[in-house]
Formats: sequence, structure tokens, C-alpha cells
Amino acid sequence: MIVSHVAIVGLGLIGGSLARALRACGAVAHISGYDPDSSQRETAQRLGIIDQVCTTPADAVRGADVVVLAVPVLRTAEALAGCLPARRADAVVTDVGSTKQSVLDDVARICGSVPAWFVAAHPIAGTEKSGIAHAQAELFHRRRVILTPHEGQDPAARSLVMRLWQAAGARVVEMDARRHDAIFAATSHLPHVLAYGFVDMLAGLDRDHDIFPNAGGGFRDFTRIASSSPQMWHDIIRANADAVGDLLDRQIDALLQIRAMMREGRWDALKALFQRARDARERYLAQIE
Amino acid sequence: MIVSHVAIVGLGLIGGSLARALRACGAVAHISGYDPDSSQRETAQRLGIIDQVCTTPADAVRGADVVVLAVPVLRTAEALAGCLPARRADAVVTDVGSTKQSVLDDVARICGSVPAWFVAAHPIAGTEKSGIAHAQAELFHRRRVILTPHEGQDPAARSLVMRLWQAAGARVVEMDARRHDAIFAATSHLPHVLAYGFVDMLAGLDRDHDIFPNAGGGFRDFTRIASSSPQMWHDIIRANADAVGDLLDRQIDALLQIRAMMREGRWDALKALFQRARDARERYLAQIE
Repeated sequence: MIVSHVAIVGLGLIGGSLARALRACGAVAHISGYDPDSSQRETAQRLGIIDQVCTTPADAVRGADVVVLAVPVLRTAEALAGCLPARRADAVVTDVGSTKQSVLDDVARICGSVPAWFVAAHPIAGTEKSGIAHAQAELFHRRRVILTPHEGQDPAARSLVMRLWQAAGARVVEMDARRHDAIFAATSHLPHVLAYGFVDMLAGLDRDHDIFPNAGGGFRDFTRIASSSPQMWHDIIRANADAVGDLLDRQIDALLQIRAMMREGRWDALKALFQRARDARERYLAQIE
Repeated sequence: MIVSHVAIVGLGLIGGSLARALRACGAVAHISGYDPDSSQRETAQRLGIIDQVCTTPADAVRGADVVVLAVPVLRTAEALAGCLPARRADAVVTDVGSTKQSVLDDVARICGSVPAWFVAAHPIAGTEKSGIAHAQAELFHRRRVILTPHEGQDPAARSLVMRLWQAAGARVVEMDARRHDAIFAATSHLPHVLAYGFVDMLAGLDRDHDIFPNAGGGFRDFTRIASSSPQMWHDIIRANADAVGDLLDRQIDALLQIRAMMREGRWDALKALFQRARDARERYLAQIE
């Protein structure tokens, strides 16, 4: 056992999967949890994912060694503020947000500065499904969790969060928060914007209802992330708007260049672009497999 | 057995998979094949996918009941021209191209008009892998094959091609060629352009080589189609350039609108767009599953 009591604030896919994972590996004796949505609370109770389902964040947090904020990123400040009055003086607080500088800024706004006991973390896991009903103990197996340490962080707090994630099966790495946000704007946030934008454009066109029914496997995979939670992704894009906006500008420029190649019949240039993209992706696949 | 001899001109993923499928179900006694690339011919021979591997299209086609042109779409005219001198007078010729009007136009150019014995067809199957080494007998199981009949087509020729595809496990439907091209521009051709364009844009940015290694499952699925054959997709985009170009213009407009929402802080509008996209995709998934 690593700690006796973990409190999870936000009972969604990530919070619920972490609870299942920590229970499955015996890392924690008692898990309390809170969600503002009564249907998520009821599901958590019914599925036995959380030992003690509470109707206020303070009730969930009271006595906990570790508090995990597992809420959409723009709700981090509010969730933290709801926990603080009941937080045990030595409790570690951590989060799971997909943007890290905005979380550190929000925490600093609530606490004056980022406290030594706060550990900013981002598990690179999830699916397009949301809600605790889809929680799986194996969600973090062999996935990375990125910690973005701040100045003055208590090394013991960081180490505790690291051990919990490792117990859940994850590999923990560290990274600067702004670098994290720039990288994930590229690999995750922008793709979501592009997928949502593409599906919405097609939905607006599909008056005869014969476009979507004619989609194949390529379409299914390309648009899978457009089935993700709109609230969660609204929060992420808004919290990382500068980095995502810059990349969206670049993407629009790239598409305008492709459009010009097509209009001007520069087909060899288009084929060369396709080839560069394929080569880059194959290199990357080779690298991580 | 449906016919005794099928010739496959173009030994790639689709031609090879069709050969495997027709052999597996006993629909054909003898399969001959030709590819200009000696390495594809050798693989076809080594894997035993083709009974008689030929070094000219005429050799492959001689005596065949059915000739399948399984080449990148812009090579259709050349492949057909190579087959005609050896084509048995009653042989049916069909294709597997992802664009259909361009194929009908090319066939008309070679033959004066589209002959009664030609059957334009498009199997909605494939993966990002190319080459006959990846051929699978099950590739067409429960997939659709779209026929785009032309005026004057011999109903017996159409019925024969239909029965071959059904024997390979596919469901056959019919559609107007231009409507086909408009629909697949939306569900398949544009997504490939967007995926290639996105990966190439990131590859240009990734000077520190820390973007791609930080990609997760969402990125992997979103970009899977960017590993497809550049030659094949160059041909498809070029053969369907008007429809794809119109949709690319719409997509660029949609992205400019999203960029404006972000710049002007219209976050509710962005969330509503994400929600519309998610709803459309979920409706579509419900419809086909």
C-alpha cells in the first residue's frame, strides 16, 4: 500500500479509471469521491468504483492523504477552492489536466502561489468515451504520465504522485509546463479542433443523408476524436488558446498551399508533400514501437 | 465456380486481396496477373496468390473471362490500352478505382465510348498498407462495393461482376458516378488531404524531435490514413480535383471561422460546434452499427 486514503474530485473516465487502477493494484486502502453530477455519483456507487461517494468536495477530501482533481481543466480552480477548507494539512493535491500552465496559473490564483504540496500531472490516456461508466483499470498501463514540476515543489509530494501513477501501470516523465502545452497543442489539441471542424462541416453539407452512411474505416479513425466530450475539449482549447491558435494558423496556411497546388496543377509538389507526411509518420511509428 | 479465368492487372493490396478472396471461396479456377513492378510480381509468385504471373498485361489477359484493372486511378487508361489487344471478345473488364467519373472518361477516351462490357466498380475497403504482401482474403468481408453503371452497359456483365464481389464477401450497391465522386470526396478523399497536410505541417515544426514521440492514441488514429500510398492518393485527388477542391475550400472556411471564434473569445460558439460534430458522428455510428 502506498497511501491509505485517496480522494478523487471529478468522477469521469480518468478519475474513475484511476480509482479502479489504484484499487486493483492495492496501492490504496480507501477511495472517496465527489462529482457535481448525481448520475456520475450514482454510477460510481453502483459499479463499486468509489468506496465513499460524497455530495460535497469537502466531504470527499476530509482525511485524505492525496487529493486528485480529475475535472475539465477550466474547473480546476473551482474544484481546488472547494477542497481547500477540508484538506488535511499534509495532504498532496494533484490533477490530471491536459493543459499544464493554465492549471499552475489557476492554482496560483487560488493559493497566492503554487504550493509545495501541489503536483501538476497529465496522464496521456483516455478514449473518446466520457463518463465513469467507461472507467477501466488498465487505461494507464504502459501510458506516459507527464509531471510538470514548479519551483518550490516538495520532492516528497512529487515522489508520492509518481509512485501512485507507477502503481497504476504508467511511466512517469517530467517536462516544463509551457513546453508540455506547446507539444500537446500539436499532437492532441489541434487534431481535436480539426476533427470536430471537419465533421461539423460535413454535417452541414449532408442534407441528403448519404455522406455519413458511405463512410469507411479511414473516416471512422480520422474522426474518432470528434466523439470526445465537447465540454472537456472546449476547456482544453480555451486553456491553451495561444498555442492552439498559432498551430491552427499554420494548418490553415498549409491547406491554402495545398489548395494552390491543386488549382495550379502542381501535382508533383502535392505528391511530394504526401510522401513527406507518410515518411514522417512511419519514422515516428518506428520510433515508438 | 463463377468463371474459370480471372486476370488481375495491378498486383497491389486490392488486386492481391481480391485474388485471395476469389480463390478462397472457389469462385474461379485460374488467376493470372500482371504488374509493371517486378518486386510485386515476385511477391505474388512467392506467396502463391496468382497462378500465372505475367510480364506483360497482354499475357495476363489472354483467354480471361474477366479482367480486373487494379491500378492507381490515373493509370487506368494505360492499363486498359495494354489489355485490349489480348482481350477475349466476350471478356468483361472491370476496375476498382476510388474515383468513378474519371475512370469512365478514361475508358471512353481509349474505346471511343464506354463499352457495354465495362463495369466501373469501387470496393470500399483497404488499409493504409500498400502492396500485395499485405493482401488478405477477408479484406472485403461485409464491405460495400459500389457499381456506377453507364448507359449501354450489358446487364450480364454487371451481374457477373456483382456475383464475383458477393462471392468475395462484399455487399454490392449501385450509384451514379458523379454522386459517388462527390460523396467519397467528402468521406475519404478530403480526409486524406487533411491528414497528410497535418502530418507534413507538424513534421516541418518538429525540429527538436519532441512532438511525434509525445503523440498518443488519438493522434495515431487521426493520422493513420497519412501512411497511405502517396502515389495512389495523388492519383485519386487529381482525378477528383474539382470535388475535393470545393470541399477543401469549405474546410478552410470552417477553420477560419473556428480561428475567429477563438480570437474573439466566442467560446460558447466553439463548444456548440464541438457538440454538433459529436452528435453528427454518434448518429452516424448508430446508423451503421
